[in-house]
Amino acid sequence: MKKSPLHHRIAPGTRVRWDRFNTAECGDVTAKDARIADTERIVAQLDPLQERLYAEGRRSLLVILQAIDTGGKDGVIRHVMRSLNPQGCVVTSFKVPTPEERNQDFLWRVHKAVPAKGMIAVFNRSHYEDVLVTRVHGLITPADAKRRMHHINAFERLLVDSGTTVLKFFLAISKDEQRRRLQARLDDPHKRWKFSPNDLIERKSWTRYAAANAEVLSATSTTHAPWHLIPADHKWYRNYVVARTMLDTLKGMDPKFPPAPLGVDFKTIRIPR
Amino acid sequence: MKKSPLHHRIAPGTRVRWDRFNTAECGDVTAKDARIADTERIVAQLDPLQERLYAEGRRSLLVILQAIDTGGKDGVIRHVMRSLNPQGCVVTSFKVPTPEERNQDFLWRVHKAVPAKGMIAVFNRSHYEDVLVTRVHGLITPADAKRRMHHINAFERLLVDSGTTVLKFFLAISKDEQRRRLQARLDDPHKRWKFSPNDLIERKSWTRYAAANAEVLSATSTTHAPWHLIPADHKWYRNYVVARTMLDTLKGMDPKFPPAPLGVDFKTIRIPR
Repeated sequence: MKKSPLHHRIAPGTRVRWDRFNTAECGDVTAKDARIADTERIVAQLDPLQERLYAEGRRSLLVILQAIDTGGKDGVIRHVMRSLNPQGCVVTSFKVPTPEERNQDFLWRVHKAVPAKGMIAVFNRSHYEDVLVTRVHGLITPADAKRRMHHINAFERLLVDSGTTVLKFFLAISKDEQRRRLQARLDDPHKRWKFSPNDLIERKSWTRYAAANAEVLSATSTTHAPWHLIPADHKWYRNYVVARTMLDTLKGMDPKFPPAPLGVDFKTIRIPR
Repeated sequence: MKKSPLHHRIAPGTRVRWDRFNTAECGDVTAKDARIADTERIVAQLDPLQERLYAEGRRSLLVILQAIDTGGKDGVIRHVMRSLNPQGCVVTSFKVPTPEERNQDFLWRVHKAVPAKGMIAVFNRSHYEDVLVTRVHGLITPADAKRRMHHINAFERLLVDSGTTVLKFFLAISKDEQRRRLQARLDDPHKRWKFSPNDLIERKSWTRYAAANAEVLSATSTTHAPWHLIPADHKWYRNYVVARTMLDTLKGMDPKFPPAPLGVDFKTIRIPR
């Protein structure tokens, strides 16, 4: 197994610049097959760590997935998160807010979905949509967006202070790679259900999305909850980096099986017939 | 792959009798290794069916797991449900009701957790605890239990009428197998966190649980939502039967990718650069 690809972490205070970012990067490895085998080995190592986290029951892990459209959020869930025990893992997909949700502040529905102690929660989209899509379409002002980003940083600080590790992945693909993926959805009858004519409209705002993404990633990569900016043109590399970062994070948390309850001497108990 | 083990279904109107039930049954097969390979092959077939169910977005599947203590609910989730895409699968574990839940009728918290269209929900324990543990400990009268079972049948009828397939598994082990499993939890430091002194107290009510289980299974195995009574002394056979029954159920539902939206001719759309 290669050394950890930690260089994808956005150091707090850094300004993200797309002209200096290569969405097709594959780290120091060229052998695709080797990487896939590696990912499977990593994923197998998540299991005992997740079991300890669950048994310990004192901390939790929140994985936030944001991406350019077709960037691979569903693919990461399918290939990496699937290896987790579903009893200890909840995936929440944030869609367009319902009328009930729109009558609350933008963090209300998100707060309800944060992981309970012992659990791993995965957000497919998140509160970051509320400073991205809203911003691109002029639904909020730049001043609103700035205020919201402060609220986001404070909210994530609350989670971290309460025992939740916050792991944020932004999956970045090139405009050309998006074209190929959208076309594949149209051409493959089994993928068509994923295509929406709205994807074409959103693609027209590519440049505005790029600017908003860069601004938000720069402003919300904090010491307590940094972003990992993942080159995602190559699906195998994307999966490898996400799996590896999750493994490193869980290892760093080092969850432990809980001690025996006071007054119970396990060694002497025999279960009666 | 062997023919489906459908004989574990409790035909509506049948009276369950434990003296005629063999918890160590393994069907028509003795080769353990063959069965394990078979289970993996079955589990791999669940994936494309689940994807169609999700894409179709019109129906759903509810899997209810009930068992004698240590019967293997967690094991089924870990080994069978893990193969599902977590984006389309939600596991809910029903614990002792909270004060808020106790202030509502017994189906209130359960109704909140039923699967949305396109989804698979797995219940680890369920509304059946409200006619089992409550009954064994004399918290409700036999008349209460009977009324509740009518409510359960009506509730499940509502779900089925609304497009949800209800699949109920009861995992049955022998008293001796339970002793071995509880002892293993004590003897293995990595399993101790699963042990509760309460397990020993509940074991003393073995006979009363057996009677309550038989009564409830007999009264709630309906045409619309029959029980599958699984011999669970052998974990590999238990996993095989659950996986196989899920596969047969999803095949029977035969979900389909949705048709193209009206007015969209996929073949002519080209994604612009």
